[in-house]
Amino acid sequence: MKIVDLDKLTGYNDKKMNRELVHDNYTFRILNFNFEPGQELPIHSHPADSELALQVLEGEGFFLGEDEEIPAKAGDLLIGPVSEPHGVRATTRMRVLVTIAPPI
Amino acid sequence: MKIVDLDKLTGYNDKKMNRELVHDNYTFRILNFNFEPGQELPIHSHPADSELALQVLEGEGFFLGEDEEIPAKAGDLLIGPVSEPHGVRATTRMRVLVTIAPPI
Repeated sequence: MKIVDLDKLTGYNDKKMNRELVHDNYTFRILNFNFEPGQELPIHSHPADSELALQVLEGEGFFLGEDEEIPAKAGDLLIGPVSEPHGVRATTRMRVLVTIAPPI
Repeated sequence: MKIVDLDKLTGYNDKKMNRELVHDNYTFRILNFNFEPGQELPIHSHPADSELALQVLEGEGFFLGEDEEIPAKAGDLLIGPVSEPHGVRATTRMRVLVTIAPPI
């Protein structure tokens, strides 16, 4: 067992979304993405049978889908197949916890 | 894709931990456990090769292990094999997001 204090994963990058690996095993991969206002995880998809969970830990922005932008705030959790187009754009500083299972 | 507002999963139960299923697929199962002060998820383990993540969304308490009690507060994320003894005890009202992959 290990314990991670998510509130200490506060690294940001002026140039692009800051990506930190929290856990990686055959079961699931967990990542922490931190965005400055305006930064984004561009819409993309993966040809795999995995699912992902995007949980907004702090801040506000949008979940991006094909032809849609859904307002996202702390406490919102998006769940779906990695094969469906998905992305994130921040309007404030934004921290997002990402879980992918099984890892791709 | 579906979006869940975790902050709206505010059900509590006077008698025992309140358990709500958020998502269940072959990839991962996600649950929301809400505890009144003093309520607990008793220490247990599962004979399976899955892993779990216990994320404290709100409140304070303890992660329970074999012969140990580790203080847990909002933002703390415990990750480990479901085969290792684990549990939770709340000292305040406490909301915990549970992810199990693959589901058992």
